[in-house]
Amino acid sequence: MTKNIKERSPRTYSIPSLRRLPLYLRELRTLAKNGEEFIACPYLADVLSVDTVSVRKDLELSGVTGLPGVGYRVKELIDGIEHFLGWKNTSEVFLAGHGELAAALTGFSGFAEWGLRIIAAFQPDPVPPETFVNGVPVFGYSELPHLTARLKVNMAVLCAPDDEAGDVYNRLSAAGIRAVLNFTQHTITPEPGRLCRQVNPGSELAVLSIQLKHLLETETPE
Amino acid sequence: MTKNIKERSPRTYSIPSLRRLPLYLRELRTLAKNGEEFIACPYLADVLSVDTVSVRKDLELSGVTGLPGVGYRVKELIDGIEHFLGWKNTSEVFLAGHGELAAALTGFSGFAEWGLRIIAAFQPDPVPPETFVNGVPVFGYSELPHLTARLKVNMAVLCAPDDEAGDVYNRLSAAGIRAVLNFTQHTITPEPGRLCRQVNPGSELAVLSIQLKHLLETETPE
Repeated sequence: MTKNIKERSPRTYSIPSLRRLPLYLRELRTLAKNGEEFIACPYLADVLSVDTVSVRKDLELSGVTGLPGVGYRVKELIDGIEHFLGWKNTSEVFLAGHGELAAALTGFSGFAEWGLRIIAAFQPDPVPPETFVNGVPVFGYSELPHLTARLKVNMAVLCAPDDEAGDVYNRLSAAGIRAVLNFTQHTITPEPGRLCRQVNPGSELAVLSIQLKHLLETETPE
Repeated sequence: MTKNIKERSPRTYSIPSLRRLPLYLRELRTLAKNGEEFIACPYLADVLSVDTVSVRKDLELSGVTGLPGVGYRVKELIDGIEHFLGWKNTSEVFLAGHGELAAALTGFSGFAEWGLRIIAAFQPDPVPPETFVNGVPVFGYSELPHLTARLKVNMAVLCAPDDEAGDVYNRLSAAGIRAVLNFTQHTITPEPGRLCRQVNPGSELAVLSIQLKHLLETETPE
């Protein structure tokens, strides 16, 4: 099995697997903190409500092989996943946009846990010098090009108002930002060589409401 | 084809399809506003960067059939999707938690677009009477049980601090909340008959950073 992995292209993974890797990492860190040395797939499967086969497949991405009957070494698995995730290279992120959600995201503790850090926020010009939100320095959009180049940042969180989102995305893209996490409801179709992921709390809640509707229908068939 | 749909269980759908339905709805509403009467799958496929076959399959969920060579009637499709989504029944939502993100979500315009409305927020007791955040009334957790019953709410957004999230989830569940949109990093494993969806901006950004890492590796193979 291991041989096959090594021969595979590094891009052989599914989005659900990628999404789960940080979750394994969180569980593994807790286990390491509690002094656990080994971990077996069924435990992780149970904690994260995933089937064991998927867990085994996901963990193959780390390049670490388990010992039969014992499982994986927790620390080795943490190292393997962190290496695969490559956080060292892409850990500094810009945030573009203003408003309550933008402010909340600058203070969001959940990024740090994944090795990601918002190092600067950008808003419409003019921004007074020495402006900070949750300790993050704020600059005008006009400073995006030179700061992107100087700080070698290639990822940004976009949470501008929906009607400005397209313009702000174009500014980010023109400045050299390659990957954008889009919190707006403006649909972005990235050009080749650019990446965009959409985070849409409204859409997620809508999905939940549909699932609930069908659950309730199943329970009360009358 | 239509016959088959009618015969199918109402729960025959995939999560990606569900996620896309609100996005179609947004495009369709824009088209309706612009006076467009008909819409063909390839247009929606193009705008949302989805393949045409998937669009056709997704739209089957609405129960509306297209006319060959013309497409779907825009208004009929809007009605059909809205009916499928069943927003009328599950449109009022609680929010549980405090902090910047909680405040930002009470004012988040993206819920209204999907027919969803946060009608009350809950925080640790005691909460002074007549407390409002972004126009949303705030109550103590102790008031969850009677307000859940009285207002017949069955969905909630959870954005408590991570270390309190488990307790707050238990309170929501005990009060009768059936579906929770979880913004915390606390993993929730819902009991049978309960639903939970996780929204994790940190994990999403981590996925993006992995995708970017591999994209950059492909570009510079040296």
